[in-house]
Amino acid sequence: MAIITLTTDLGDKDIYQAVLKGSILKALPGVTIVDITHSVAAFNLQQAAFVLKNSFHYFPEGTVHLIGIDTVYQNETKFLATQYRNHYFVGTDNGIFSLIFDEAPQQIVEINILQDLKFLHFPLADIFVKAACHLAQGYNINEIGIPVNSVEKKMNLQPTVERNLIRGIVIYIDSFQNVITNITKEFFNKVQQGRRFVLYFKRNETITQLSWHYNEVPEGEKLCLFGISDHLEIAINKGNASGLLGLNLGDSVIIDFQ
Amino acid sequence: MAIITLTTDLGDKDIYQAVLKGSILKALPGVTIVDITHSVAAFNLQQAAFVLKNSFHYFPEGTVHLIGIDTVYQNETKFLATQYRNHYFVGTDNGIFSLIFDEAPQQIVEINILQDLKFLHFPLADIFVKAACHLAQGYNINEIGIPVNSVEKKMNLQPTVERNLIRGIVIYIDSFQNVITNITKEFFNKVQQGRRFVLYFKRNETITQLSWHYNEVPEGEKLCLFGISDHLEIAINKGNASGLLGLNLGDSVIIDFQ
Amino acid sequence: MAIITLTTDLGDKDIYQAVLKGSILKALPGVTIVDITHSVAAFNLQQAAFVLKNSFHYFPEGTVHLIGIDTVYQNETKFLATQYRNHYFVGTDNGIFSLIFDEAPQQIVEINILQDLKFLHFPLADIFVKAACHLAQGYNINEIGIPVNSVEKKMNLQPTVERNLIRGIVIYIDSFQNVITNITKEFFNKVQQGRRFVLYFKRNETITQLSWHYNEVPEGEKLCLFGISDHLEIAINKGNASGLLGLNLGDSVIIDFQ
Repeated sequence: MAIITLTTDLGDKDIYQAVLKGSILKALPGVTIVDITHSVAAFNLQQAAFVLKNSFHYFPEGTVHLIGIDTVYQNETKFLATQYRNHYFVGTDNGIFSLIFDEAPQQIVEINILQDLKFLHFPLADIFVKAACHLAQGYNINEIGIPVNSVEKKMNLQPTVERNLIRGIVIYIDSFQNVITNITKEFFNKVQQGRRFVLYFKRNETITQLSWHYNEVPEGEKLCLFGISDHLEIAINKGNASGLLGLNLGDSVIIDFQ
Repeated sequence: MAIITLTTDLGDKDIYQAVLKGSILKALPGVTIVDITHSVAAFNLQQAAFVLKNSFHYFPEGTVHLIGIDTVYQNETKFLATQYRNHYFVGTDNGIFSLIFDEAPQQIVEINILQDLKFLHFPLADIFVKAACHLAQGYNINEIGIPVNSVEKKMNLQPTVERNLIRGIVIYIDSFQNVITNITKEFFNKVQQGRRFVLYFKRNETITQLSWHYNEVPEGEKLCLFGISDHLEIAINKGNASGLLGLNLGDSVIIDFQ
Repeated sequence: MAIITLTTDLGDKDIYQAVLKGSILKALPGVTIVDITHSVAAFNLQQAAFVLKNSFHYFPEGTVHLIGIDTVYQNETKFLATQYRNHYFVGTDNGIFSLIFDEAPQQIVEINILQDLKFLHFPLADIFVKAACHLAQGYNINEIGIPVNSVEKKMNLQPTVERNLIRGIVIYIDSFQNVITNITKEFFNKVQQGRRFVLYFKRNETITQLSWHYNEVPEGEKLCLFGISDHLEIAINKGNASGLLGLNLGDSVIIDFQ
């Protein structure tokens, strides 16, 4: 069963989603299309990457993930198909791949199944769909493009370690207003080495314990935990952490190990 | 054809929907997933129950309805699978089932296919999906849990009858700003016994006739009818009843039979 | 593979979408349902027509497009099924068909598979679904209704030509705040005849060149192009054209050929 997922900033009221889905169903009848999200803020690569990076591996291997962010043709634009951890990703070589992948992908090709890219109005529904349907049918990635050595690099801001401190930032606020940082569980564990800690944020706020579930503290109280995305998250049990704690994208957090 | 429907408060911009759908498609390739809604207000059991109660029976028998509201593990949490009117419902035993069901379900089991629930970050994508996919494949409900006698009770506020009066309240405002009360057609008919009536709400507003369609009064005028959900609804033909009449969730309405 | 698309103003939080989709899946298990959009403004025929007119042809021939706008029964209401460019459209004869079709459809029938339309609460899930599923299975359109000669006419405001001038208006603002006019590429080309032009809008704004892509001007600068919908569009490269240029629905634009 072929699956194509969609991660775009196209919204849900215009013709664009329909053009995209119609084109896919015309090219590959019977394919399963899954909306990851169409609510990425316009042109926001970081947000799209966060969502896809933390959800793609829940899909079966062989799934094709189509990334529809910033797909307008430019003179030096490369449209790529890549294979990473046995999943396929199709998108523009604008840095998005490096934001999603932790290591080099298994394969990278520059898609060459269409000429005259310059005259495409909507590469997403033209070249991307053609490439994605090809891959979803199980064809070899080398049949749709020529090998490329590496993808455009764009770095997520990484947390830093200095003596006893991890310094991180807020990279995502979810719909429940949970505040998600760039500190992964793996990174935290490596630095912690079993020590106790104080998490500092805003002026005077501190948390000194990791929770496993949101409801381990009374309703309305703050906590921190590693959520579904395995990133350190600051939350309020059944409350709006971002609003109540005044935590926004880009804000700093510090973990002091003792 | 296996169908799993989703009713959640997960919104449409984060990783959660994708994690859920990816997990389902990995466990049961080819299943049809239908979004009932992901726009339930966070933790709002009443809203989720209203939507599912009034729509589930339009799906084919055997459909599995996954309820993703308030699914965080707690010490005494029970995750249940139930069979009701030949549909399956999977959710947390937090009262939601009693809000959806009019009578005792055919079967109730506490899901026991996973140990160590305590360490699940996202029971929805772990235990719920596993149970739902099992049921969607036609396996017996007893294979995924141990029988339980009853579900947690949570009562919808029922309308009351006193002499000639029905007293009800507003329980739902829909996207068209139609105002839906807790008075069902069946309840209304039983009390009415063919009598004429005056529906009172807010200070001075009255309606004395049941319409069948929204457009039986001139555009901009108020009316009442039994809508798709078979609940008494106050509406304005092509207008915003909630806003224009000042009717909100929890407001009282009174029907005086004469 | 049968495909039914949905274009409605039902929103995404109520029971209505679920009732519709459940009814379709009950009538035609295995059908592929595609949401074109459920975010049409309530009763807005023009918006629904714009979206469907500019996207339906991306779907395979034989696709059934269900139009759920203004479907409440009235005494003289006709519910129609039509065939146009080898696609099927099912909706109310309220003018929507004439807004979508450029020429007379191949076939028009008034759906007569249900009696007592008057007592339907939700024709969309009753008669429309029944008709759509019938067509999606490949049955003949004449089996579900009696031939009708023409559809109700509602005219889109057309651009006018006077000497060297095209006068048009803004008919759609998309999610990116791109401003779309009623001037099609075909119309523009016919009048232009290779001449240079000045596009005037608001008080003092002018554009004198057609772009092919949004990014042919520096970020933040205005441009015009024929977009995915083949309508003349005023945009700002990675910017909010409607807001920044003060262009709203119904505003005039003038093209002066020189």
